[in-house]
Amino acid sequence: MNEKIRLLRERLRNLNMEGMIITNPISIKYLTNIENEGTLLITRKENIFLTYTMFLESVRSTVTINDELIIADFRDVSKEECENFFLFCENIGFEENYVTYKQYHYLKQKYKVNNLAETENIIEKLRAIKDKEEIEKIKKACEITDNCFNHLLEFIKIGMTEKEIALEIETFFKKNGAEGLAFDTIVAIGENSANPHWNPSDREVRMADPILIDMGCKYQGYCSDMTRTIFMGCILEEIKPVYDLVLKNLSYTDKEIKEYASIKTISQMVESDFKLNKYDLIHSLGHSIGMETHEMPYINTKNDTYLKENMVIAIEPGIYLPGKYGIRIEDTILVEKNGCTILTNSPRNYVIL
Amino acid sequence: MNEKIRLLRERLRNLNMEGMIITNPISIKYLTNIENEGTLLITRKENIFLTYTMFLESVRSTVTINDELIIADFRDVSKEECENFFLFCENIGFEENYVTYKQYHYLKQKYKVNNLAETENIIEKLRAIKDKEEIEKIKKACEITDNCFNHLLEFIKIGMTEKEIALEIETFFKKNGAEGLAFDTIVAIGENSANPHWNPSDREVRMADPILIDMGCKYQGYCSDMTRTIFMGCILEEIKPVYDLVLKNLSYTDKEIKEYASIKTISQMVESDFKLNKYDLIHSLGHSIGMETHEMPYINTKNDTYLKENMVIAIEPGIYLPGKYGIRIEDTILVEKNGCTILTNSPRNYVIL
Repeated sequence: MNEKIRLLRERLRNLNMEGMIITNPISIKYLTNIENEGTLLITRKENIFLTYTMFLESVRSTVTINDELIIADFRDVSKEECENFFLFCENIGFEENYVTYKQYHYLKQKYKVNNLAETENIIEKLRAIKDKEEIEKIKKACEITDNCFNHLLEFIKIGMTEKEIALEIETFFKKNGAEGLAFDTIVAIGENSANPHWNPSDREVRMADPILIDMGCKYQGYCSDMTRTIFMGCILEEIKPVYDLVLKNLSYTDKEIKEYASIKTISQMVESDFKLNKYDLIHSLGHSIGMETHEMPYINTKNDTYLKENMVIAIEPGIYLPGKYGIRIEDTILVEKNGCTILTNSPRNYVIL
Repeated sequence: MNEKIRLLRERLRNLNMEGMIITNPISIKYLTNIENEGTLLITRKENIFLTYTMFLESVRSTVTINDELIIADFRDVSKEECENFFLFCENIGFEENYVTYKQYHYLKQKYKVNNLAETENIIEKLRAIKDKEEIEKIKKACEITDNCFNHLLEFIKIGMTEKEIALEIETFFKKNGAEGLAFDTIVAIGENSANPHWNPSDREVRMADPILIDMGCKYQGYCSDMTRTIFMGCILEEIKPVYDLVLKNLSYTDKEIKEYASIKTISQMVESDFKLNKYDLIHSLGHSIGMETHEMPYINTKNDTYLKENMVIAIEPGIYLPGKYGIRIEDTILVEKNGCTILTNSPRNYVIL
């Protein structure tokens, strides 16, 4: 059986569950590599993927014998067969943070489950620890992102709009081996950079503008995430101390990140240092990253858990002054036993175009 | 009060509900134009939007006095205030097809709702009937899509890959007034066209290839959807009868589409005609389209409802022969009182490059 499904079965046993109904396409892709719509049933003895007629061929060409996965067409599985998959089972898990209220009742009835029980993000927790192959893919996504940043330093000129720059980023990604964007690119010029979630507009680059670029690509299903705030022509003097404060805190976290580091403590340290300088940390300090840009564990002051080896996280301290400007610097970082490796390697210091 | 919220309140009263908790960002955008994260509460007397500190400015700049919407920061609303929003209310609606199992229990407790009840897609049903402004936006998205198709006829050459063509489509959309894609573009060449949900690959265009292109853009939040299957150099004789059959059925639906036409009957007619010719209709005949590419009502043989004036639908008959080729032709269509208007106007007949 494939290693990921084997691990999942182990965790299910720990939760005293005899099986699981999995419907989140990301969970299904993670566990089986299948990208087509369907339902994955982990039963006592078998792993079964039910899908639609039109996807059968594609699914069959994806799985390997090693997956030990039975593929079936929804149309060929009778009501009685559905009701027998979990016969004599007491607790069957489901994804309580993905399945809608309506689906929950549908699944419970369709598969005649005695107790369809919450699994506390069991699959998301598995996904938090990356294996070698996953780390390689994230590294490659980060490399493409660094190359894109380098390209932008040549590309961006006065008079260009946020939209034009965002489109260039996407085009660069796709022409350089990425499938596409990990998330909608943020290009926020001047006063727009004060909005942490800006959508690229027709605002043009002018002299002395800060240009905040938050971008990431997807390489073989895995994401990168990096933010840099760069400057056209010069940096206004008033911006420098804010930039320095953000950068200092990012550098601080580099030193703290390692296995068993407390997520809460790291986040609180940044929050405190910002407060000490009369600024607020208005969003989370960061998040994990992998098949999705935002994954568990989230890096914020409310998270009581610890970092673990082979987690990959994005740390993104930012300070935003409405009507004026915002500074955010962000890197994708691999957590290691005794430290960390920063996977996005674009210059963190002042970059002036 | 804005017309859309007014209509929603009317429908809630019909369901015997005193209010609603709305968390789906698309519903929130539809009702209020707000694009930021938050929760919209329709209480007995007020419409309240709760959001995060960092979004307050953006939200305030979006809403108008006419919306009669109270904006508040989650941080400033106490536990007691939350529990009082629906005081003395019996039934409060929620979005059972959006809210997860976990969120359901969270919302019920947080807002102390007596009976948090299913609303049977109340907002999706409102969204199904488009107003003038919405129709204009969809028309514009369709116009950009037609222009893109025209551009492709010049652009596509032997040796080009599916990925290159897909990237050109996206770039064209963004350079011609669209925000971006309505959905991931499908470019499927040759045998790949037999897969209805193909992801663009490095497969190159060769002589005599069918090239299936399913594309749509988003213009001011509204989508278009069009598919054409075109040919490089010539059409294989064996493909012609299949193409003709698909086209005949699309033309047939044009004649049937009008207010009160039965969705089931139209779908069954196409299915029967395919069967008569020994082919299967392996996916739905179509779907509604608007803020999302796939909206209610879905156009298939299981849907017992009727078309209504000012619905906008995409009809996409297709025949797929695994290992060989697939033919799909699709248009976005406005339902009218006595007929319909086809909004995507690219040529439906054989197009040979």
